[in-house]
Amino acid sequence: MSLIPSKKRLAHIVFEHDDKASKAFDVTILVLILGSIIVVVLDSVGEIRVEYHKFFSVLEWTFTILFTLEYLLRLWLSKRKIGYVLSFYGLVDLFAIVPTYLSLFLLNTQFLVVIRSLRLLRVIRILKLGRYLNEAEFLKEALNASKAKIQIFIGSVLAIVLIAGTLMYIVEGPESGFTSIPMSMYWAIVTLTTVGFGDITPLTAFGKFLASLIMLMGYGIIAVPTGIVTAEMASAKNKISMANARSCGNCKFIESDVQAKFCKNCGEKFPQK
Amino acid sequence: MSLIPSKKRLAHIVFEHDDKASKAFDVTILVLILGSIIVVVLDSVGEIRVEYHKFFSVLEWTFTILFTLEYLLRLWLSKRKIGYVLSFYGLVDLFAIVPTYLSLFLLNTQFLVVIRSLRLLRVIRILKLGRYLNEAEFLKEALNASKAKIQIFIGSVLAIVLIAGTLMYIVEGPESGFTSIPMSMYWAIVTLTTVGFGDITPLTAFGKFLASLIMLMGYGIIAVPTGIVTAEMASAKNKISMANARSCGNCKFIESDVQAKFCKNCGEKFPQK
Amino acid sequence: MSLIPSKKRLAHIVFEHDDKASKAFDVTILVLILGSIIVVVLDSVGEIRVEYHKFFSVLEWTFTILFTLEYLLRLWLSKRKIGYVLSFYGLVDLFAIVPTYLSLFLLNTQFLVVIRSLRLLRVIRILKLGRYLNEAEFLKEALNASKAKIQIFIGSVLAIVLIAGTLMYIVEGPESGFTSIPMSMYWAIVTLTTVGFGDITPLTAFGKFLASLIMLMGYGIIAVPTGIVTAEMASAKNKISMANARSCGNCKFIESDVQAKFCKNCGEKFPQK
Amino acid sequence: MSLIPSKKRLAHIVFEHDDKASKAFDVTILVLILGSIIVVVLDSVGEIRVEYHKFFSVLEWTFTILFTLEYLLRLWLSKRKIGYVLSFYGLVDLFAIVPTYLSLFLLNTQFLVVIRSLRLLRVIRILKLGRYLNEAEFLKEALNASKAKIQIFIGSVLAIVLIAGTLMYIVEGPESGFTSIPMSMYWAIVTLTTVGFGDITPLTAFGKFLASLIMLMGYGIIAVPTGIVTAEMASAKNKISMANARSCGNCKFIESDVQAKFCKNCGEKFPQK
Repeated sequence: MSLIPSKKRLAHIVFEHDDKASKAFDVTILVLILGSIIVVVLDSVGEIRVEYHKFFSVLEWTFTILFTLEYLLRLWLSKRKIGYVLSFYGLVDLFAIVPTYLSLFLLNTQFLVVIRSLRLLRVIRILKLGRYLNEAEFLKEALNASKAKIQIFIGSVLAIVLIAGTLMYIVEGPESGFTSIPMSMYWAIVTLTTVGFGDITPLTAFGKFLASLIMLMGYGIIAVPTGIVTAEMASAKNKISMANARSCGNCKFIESDVQAKFCKNCGEKFPQK
Repeated sequence: MSLIPSKKRLAHIVFEHDDKASKAFDVTILVLILGSIIVVVLDSVGEIRVEYHKFFSVLEWTFTILFTLEYLLRLWLSKRKIGYVLSFYGLVDLFAIVPTYLSLFLLNTQFLVVIRSLRLLRVIRILKLGRYLNEAEFLKEALNASKAKIQIFIGSVLAIVLIAGTLMYIVEGPESGFTSIPMSMYWAIVTLTTVGFGDITPLTAFGKFLASLIMLMGYGIIAVPTGIVTAEMASAKNKISMANARSCGNCKFIESDVQAKFCKNCGEKFPQK
Repeated sequence: MSLIPSKKRLAHIVFEHDDKASKAFDVTILVLILGSIIVVVLDSVGEIRVEYHKFFSVLEWTFTILFTLEYLLRLWLSKRKIGYVLSFYGLVDLFAIVPTYLSLFLLNTQFLVVIRSLRLLRVIRILKLGRYLNEAEFLKEALNASKAKIQIFIGSVLAIVLIAGTLMYIVEGPESGFTSIPMSMYWAIVTLTTVGFGDITPLTAFGKFLASLIMLMGYGIIAVPTGIVTAEMASAKNKISMANARSCGNCKFIESDVQAKFCKNCGEKFPQK
Repeated sequence: MSLIPSKKRLAHIVFEHDDKASKAFDVTILVLILGSIIVVVLDSVGEIRVEYHKFFSVLEWTFTILFTLEYLLRLWLSKRKIGYVLSFYGLVDLFAIVPTYLSLFLLNTQFLVVIRSLRLLRVIRILKLGRYLNEAEFLKEALNASKAKIQIFIGSVLAIVLIAGTLMYIVEGPESGFTSIPMSMYWAIVTLTTVGFGDITPLTAFGKFLASLIMLMGYGIIAVPTGIVTAEMASAKNKISMANARSCGNCKFIESDVQAKFCKNCGEKFPQK
């Protein structure tokens, strides 16, 4: 193997995850993403920015240049270049590097604050972590299987939020902070989800009574999504154990323990798998 | 088919949901309801009302006239007219249109605010959405099966709220905001449901100790409704999968997947259902 | 039957719940308890007390005299009189009537406020409602079966509360409201139970970081009591269905549906129960 | 047995938990730990410290000397002395006694406050309680089995917290208290866990809308850890009851109660295990 790998070999390293070199590439990108996120996060803290701004600036340009090289590499190795550029991860990769370059031309302008904000979108890159997780499948499946039920549930919650918000707006009115129906709906969501910031609270006796009913209802319906997800998970676990269940050839006893070698009912030997 | 449908055909379109025309009617009404709700919600926001009041007024009259036509149509097509007028949806349909007409006669009067509030009751129309959801059955059944248990649970929670509220009223007194037993019960509900607004909080050491006990109790009993609903859901799912499980005629392998055509253990064809 | 029932008959009416007369007695007492509670609750509201104090006073004396009669009746009918007086419900019955009589002698004194508070203990009478609920058994059993696990859980939570409270006391100190370890533990309970009043919140960066860890931990352990109760409930439901499961006499197929008349595997008729 | 036990006997008493003497030793240490914790907790309360400081000081020195004796005893009895000193419990035992001695040399210095704080680390000793709990195994197993899933879940929550925190920082900005991304992430954790202190809340309309979405998401994902733990617990319970189920030799009735001696269906005696 020569020191400079072939284009085919490079494509394997960049796009696959099955040998040493490709895994090393994945881990490197991961570390760079995490590093760039930490810089963005720390740079947002006033006291830290004042002291380390120069250092962060250098780091940011380093990350940007490395991500630019990665972007160009992926583009060069892609068979369908337009497809990559317009794909979700392609756009995220692009948005992660563009703001830093833009900041060059927009220095000392009004738009700098917006640009600095836009740069923060880079955190979405962390979603790329998803590529490296196979074990998350179980959770995804359980959530997917309950998709229809969860949608109906969200729909019902929104209807309750609308009705509860409107009633509280009528009962409490602007003096208590329920200045409009959307504001009241925000309060209803804060309350139904049991977050309860306390920035808006009912002041009248009837408003407090109504709020109590809404809270008790929230207490009840918080059980529904849990019930849905749990039932799906238990059923998924069951499916696995059902798939492994065997019936004894002699006495028809059903055995769900995969490691059993003999029927625990009549002693008949199970056929080897 | 002539351009003007017969009365019988019209009744089918309005009351049934099984062909193209009737589904189109349903969707139209749905869009009108959602549109009218959005207008009511946006009109409640001060800044938006100031700018778009004229536009909203036009929209409101448009929706009211369309809902009036729908109401008259339903009335004309109903076989039992009094029955429709006095039914729940009949009353909701009526209350959705009356306030706008009333506002004509009460302009510039004291009652206008109340009328404007009454108009908001129209959001209850969204409950009509329930007509179009068949898949919500599963959730309803699980909640229904647990009805008795949930009632006992609500009863116990109310008893705890009463006792906790009274104790906190005795311990804390009016200085901390626990001005009366109903106010203390409101606090107890806010606390037991883990909403925790923070508008009323214990100030004395013993009050804080008592509040801690109430919170830990709330932490424990929040598990009960979840347990009830989950157990019902898991049992409903189990019943379905147990009812569908088949044993292969050749190798006795147990198959819980209804759509399987061949035994995945030995390849034997399952008899057609 | 004469108009004045015999002592034996009266004892049956008061202590049993199996015929018309005894049930009527139960319901009467229940209504009186609820009525007296409502009077106590309403009387605690300043504005209502000012206006209806005379009326509430009359009602209170009426309830007190009726409860006194009930107390004397129970005492007279009890075979073990000392046993009744010292029993839990006997003491509750006594404490429900004593405060009103005491208020006669203590009028216009400093102790009146304490007495008025003591009178509120009467709400504990609502616990007598428990006598009338048979269906609560299922919930009780599920909670009882998990008793040991719940105790360990409460113990672990208290240990976490102690450690979290101490750490926050060290990190934040009195300036942020964490004035002592018990106060910090109160904050830890408010936070771990996700109530979150917001009366005490961390102000330093490290305090906020620590609080975040405590909250995420609380998020995780909130699952444990729910898991315990749900597993018990599902298992209780399972036990019922297992108790009803039958094995087919011909092919040994296991049937959990009680209403099945024929084996759905081989068509063999099940013996009638 | 002589009055002074042999070294071997002492080692048994200190390290084992299977006879009267060793259990008495365990309980004594437990009571001392709880006592020392109560003193530390009460001493942190200003009003109590002022009055009882002398008394607490005496108690603290008593506990410290007793713990020192215990430490030396454990050290003397350990076969691998370095191993004990560097073990987790060895370090906790050391840290529980060192601060009190250090306070002798550092009296009236600046470091006294830090030392007093360090002394509080002693509460970690309560973790030793874990040694005495065998029944906690069930909970541990359920949590262990779900370890991988919980890790993925925590990872996803952190990613959501990062993205939600960054978005709120962009939308709300420093005026609303979202002064930096870490501060915004603290808010996101407070909100997603439904704690909701209310120390930082969105003020702009769009910020409130975004916060509503984050809360509804939190409402949904709160179901996931509960689902994971519950499914594991239900499966663990199922495994136990399935493994113990027997079929009656006479009537094929399935019995899941391990303690049953006769078939409750036909009276046939079960073979002894």
